[in-house]
Amino acid sequence: RNRGRLLISCPDQPGIVATVSRFLFEYNANIIESSQYSTNPEGGTFFMRVEFECPGLSKKAKEIEQAFEEIAEQFSMKWKLSYVHDLKRTAIFVSKELHCLLELLWEWQSGGLLTDIALIVSNHEDARETAESFGIPFCHVPANKENRAEAEAQQLRLLEEYKIDVIILARYMQILTPNFVAAHPNRIINIHHSFLPAFIGARPYERAHERGVKLIGATSHYVTNDLDEGPIIEQGVERVRHHHNVEALKKIGRSIERSVLARAVKWHLEDRVIVDRNKTIVF
Amino acid sequence: RNRGRLLISCPDQPGIVATVSRFLFEYNANIIESSQYSTNPEGGTFFMRVEFECPGLSKKAKEIEQAFEEIAEQFSMKWKLSYVHDLKRTAIFVSKELHCLLELLWEWQSGGLLTDIALIVSNHEDARETAESFGIPFCHVPANKENRAEAEAQQLRLLEEYKIDVIILARYMQILTPNFVAAHPNRIINIHHSFLPAFIGARPYERAHERGVKLIGATSHYVTNDLDEGPIIEQGVERVRHHHNVEALKKIGRSIERSVLARAVKWHLEDRVIVDRNKTIVF
Amino acid sequence: RNRGRLLISCPDQPGIVATVSRFLFEYNANIIESSQYSTNPEGGTFFMRVEFECPGLSKKAKEIEQAFEEIAEQFSMKWKLSYVHDLKRTAIFVSKELHCLLELLWEWQSGGLLTDIALIVSNHEDARETAESFGIPFCHVPANKENRAEAEAQQLRLLEEYKIDVIILARYMQILTPNFVAAHPNRIINIHHSFLPAFIGARPYERAHERGVKLIGATSHYVTNDLDEGPIIEQGVERVRHHHNVEALKKIGRSIERSVLARAVKWHLEDRVIVDRNKTIVF
Amino acid sequence: RNRGRLLISCPDQPGIVATVSRFLFEYNANIIESSQYSTNPEGGTFFMRVEFECPGLSKKAKEIEQAFEEIAEQFSMKWKLSYVHDLKRTAIFVSKELHCLLELLWEWQSGGLLTDIALIVSNHEDARETAESFGIPFCHVPANKENRAEAEAQQLRLLEEYKIDVIILARYMQILTPNFVAAHPNRIINIHHSFLPAFIGARPYERAHERGVKLIGATSHYVTNDLDEGPIIEQGVERVRHHHNVEALKKIGRSIERSVLARAVKWHLEDRVIVDRNKTIVF
Repeated sequence: RNRGRLLISCPDQPGIVATVSRFLFEYNANIIESSQYSTNPEGGTFFMRVEFECPGLSKKAKEIEQAFEEIAEQFSMKWKLSYVHDLKRTAIFVSKELHCLLELLWEWQSGGLLTDIALIVSNHEDARETAESFGIPFCHVPANKENRAEAEAQQLRLLEEYKIDVIILARYMQILTPNFVAAHPNRIINIHHSFLPAFIGARPYERAHERGVKLIGATSHYVTNDLDEGPIIEQGVERVRHHHNVEALKKIGRSIERSVLARAVKWHLEDRVIVDRNKTIVF
Repeated sequence: RNRGRLLISCPDQPGIVATVSRFLFEYNANIIESSQYSTNPEGGTFFMRVEFECPGLSKKAKEIEQAFEEIAEQFSMKWKLSYVHDLKRTAIFVSKELHCLLELLWEWQSGGLLTDIALIVSNHEDARETAESFGIPFCHVPANKENRAEAEAQQLRLLEEYKIDVIILARYMQILTPNFVAAHPNRIINIHHSFLPAFIGARPYERAHERGVKLIGATSHYVTNDLDEGPIIEQGVERVRHHHNVEALKKIGRSIERSVLARAVKWHLEDRVIVDRNKTIVF
Repeated sequence: RNRGRLLISCPDQPGIVATVSRFLFEYNANIIESSQYSTNPEGGTFFMRVEFECPGLSKKAKEIEQAFEEIAEQFSMKWKLSYVHDLKRTAIFVSKELHCLLELLWEWQSGGLLTDIALIVSNHEDARETAESFGIPFCHVPANKENRAEAEAQQLRLLEEYKIDVIILARYMQILTPNFVAAHPNRIINIHHSFLPAFIGARPYERAHERGVKLIGATSHYVTNDLDEGPIIEQGVERVRHHHNVEALKKIGRSIERSVLARAVKWHLEDRVIVDRNKTIVF
Repeated sequence: RNRGRLLISCPDQPGIVATVSRFLFEYNANIIESSQYSTNPEGGTFFMRVEFECPGLSKKAKEIEQAFEEIAEQFSMKWKLSYVHDLKRTAIFVSKELHCLLELLWEWQSGGLLTDIALIVSNHEDARETAESFGIPFCHVPANKENRAEAEAQQLRLLEEYKIDVIILARYMQILTPNFVAAHPNRIINIHHSFLPAFIGARPYERAHERGVKLIGATSHYVTNDLDEGPIIEQGVERVRHHHNVEALKKIGRSIERSVLARAVKWHLEDRVIVDRNKTIVF
């Protein structure tokens, strides 16, 4: 198809929209969807996402990118042009609980997630059968506190070998080292099983039960080196009551985790998320 | 202030955004917020809302409007330019139940609704004290099935006298004639106490109770001559259970009605709503 | 296990709770959870659900049932005693869309639905592979407007052969005859893809799109002979916006359908639902 | 009226419901609503709330209370019998922001909160006019970090003089001393403007904005001597987006605070809340 997406962030000033839309018009691109946001018209940062249809896009891609470089320099833009037909390649990391993996596979199968799921990595064997039934390569990489360095080295080799663009931690339960995280900035998406910043860290459902909260939640965020402190992409909650024990909270929570992670991944794949320091703009 | 809003709808074609944003740039307008939507890039309708900051806007207003007329003709646009400092004048019609009126007054007082509430009209005396405590003129116009013609004549005179731009039916409970509705196209906002199109017409909470629904709702829409069939602006729902009797549904419903109507009015006042046949685009 | 559930409905009068709880106490049953509801203490109907733990329940079951018969007569009760270890046997009817089936299988596999899924019936072959991968018998019964009588005869034979207690129409899309429905009163659970009573009948997402609603929903209900008019068990909604086309509404809707049906089935399996004419009490 | 409510908590054991319901039956009381919950049938704590209708209740009250004492001893119960006609007396503490006060007054005026609002206390004059327009005594008690002791002494005298049963901190913004809190255990209801335990303490909306959360919330809880750590009664959230600045979060938050506090107060007034260590059972 001839559909492209342009993501921009730059210091705000008059004329950005005019210049960008003029540029696209000159390449016969018709704007399908366009969103802007400025943190402050006076000296703030400007963000823009444009989805457009452009006849013969794949042939003109190089030319367009070169031509746009000039505009980008003029406005000091960070920018990215992506092509809808050029599917991102995804690796899903999973541990023993498979509900988030299954939700992603299912949404993917029914056409809700446009990506190549190229690889499933796990420190356990539980997901092998599922992976294989979907025809996706499964790699068992035993990972724990002791062998973290070797495990990550092996994982990084796999990510390179499979040319992975996006890593989804679908309840992976292992902490990644700064080295690993630095290799994939804003491209590792995690699901944390609490409504952050409440219950950062381990055993959030147990702690939610102890505190007696009346809503529980889940948070999907990009992974940074501060545990559970990365830019939040999406959150969800459900009502709970006094009679729900920890087991019941976990069951309700699984359903929140599934839908929150699926939405976050979908938005990332559709290039709807721009990271601005520790926050996200979601267009 | 120097803030303006431009609303556009026209047949979709390439170059609209480029032309409009170029135009604004030439008048030194900085785009604060901009939204677009097209029903179909091939032969569909294109909608756009731009909010911008333009130094000396009020002095240049006439000139800008005249200059834009040319663009509008070129693209066959329906368009409206409005000025944020130029507050819309609102009349609230109310009957005996005051919860929606109170919500609007309160949101208005706390700065959430930027408008001049110029007039409160009622077929009962119940709202007089409230209106006067807020310093708003109150007009008692007895209206019922028998005297509809005279009542509406008097109401239309009031609307003209007070130069009213927006009419809010805050649980007014009287049906308006086609004559009255035609005089204010897409400028009469109603709150219906059900989740439309369920329970069109009278006694929706009683009928919701009979049907045994598990969620009840409210709908705010522009008034047309088809009862409860006008373009929907906003809807909301709340969960109910078997033990809620009709009285309890009404209490829960009042809270939904209040917030749904307040959101719809806010969006209308901020020029966020474009009517497209029997639907709304809400930017 | 030694866990039982007692469901009661009868004319309200003083002394019901005292008598029932006394009865259970005499059999050494400890009440785990108990809910009551009365439509009206004066002349209304009283509903009660008690879940209890009773040592040696399976051995005493007959004796308890006989003894309770006396109380039931005294208060003119309709009642049912069920045993948690005695799993209900479920048949799932499905057509070509598999999302509701998959949600049920998945919840069942992860322990969220305590039942024997004994049979999957479909008028298409699409679900066969899934059924077989879960080790569940799959029966292809071609059914359409022309052969309804023969198809239902075959289905009724299957339901008898597999001793089915509950029939779930997981987007089955075929209308059942009064004959079929009458054979399974309040034991056929359907998912309708709209927020009933809005958009009864065919093509609800298309009609929701035409009407321009701002929330779409799904409804799970017991099947009666009035199309989409049976007692509602559960409903859910999600927010939609002007840019969602029919295809997008269907995708969002699938996720609502899945969770609404799963909750309704769970509550039915846990004996939490009592039907009172055309409404449900959900404890 | 002849309506009473019995609240019970005691070690769980068989026979409690039977004994209590037998007791009520002997006094000709008809159970209107009854709820039970046990933390664990084996050695846990049992909680029960019964609402009943009893002819001539006010005359028999003393007799019933004395007679119930025997049962209470037998089961080691903590219990309270309250009478619906015997309205609780409420004091509302408020500072400069009046939205929570207004919501309570309004719900009270429309019959949603059955209580005597006997007193409004504030460390500012902003609420005086509102209080007086509702005919409620208003006491200005200047309170700040410096004069806390004298201010609280004066407040305690007022609470005694006006025979206050419930204290509502409707955005009061002053910290109470352990002395004050100890004088009213589980009878001071606060609204905190965040989804606890996230953003404990000051400036929660500012911190929510910095963290980039996608939902903001409010929490109503009983006040204890641990800041924002008391038993949670109710919580609510609303979705927010990247374009909402702190001011916008506060506006959205005000609406959450209003409804969350009003629900919590309503439940407290209806004797639906039992405190169990640091958690609440809400029946």
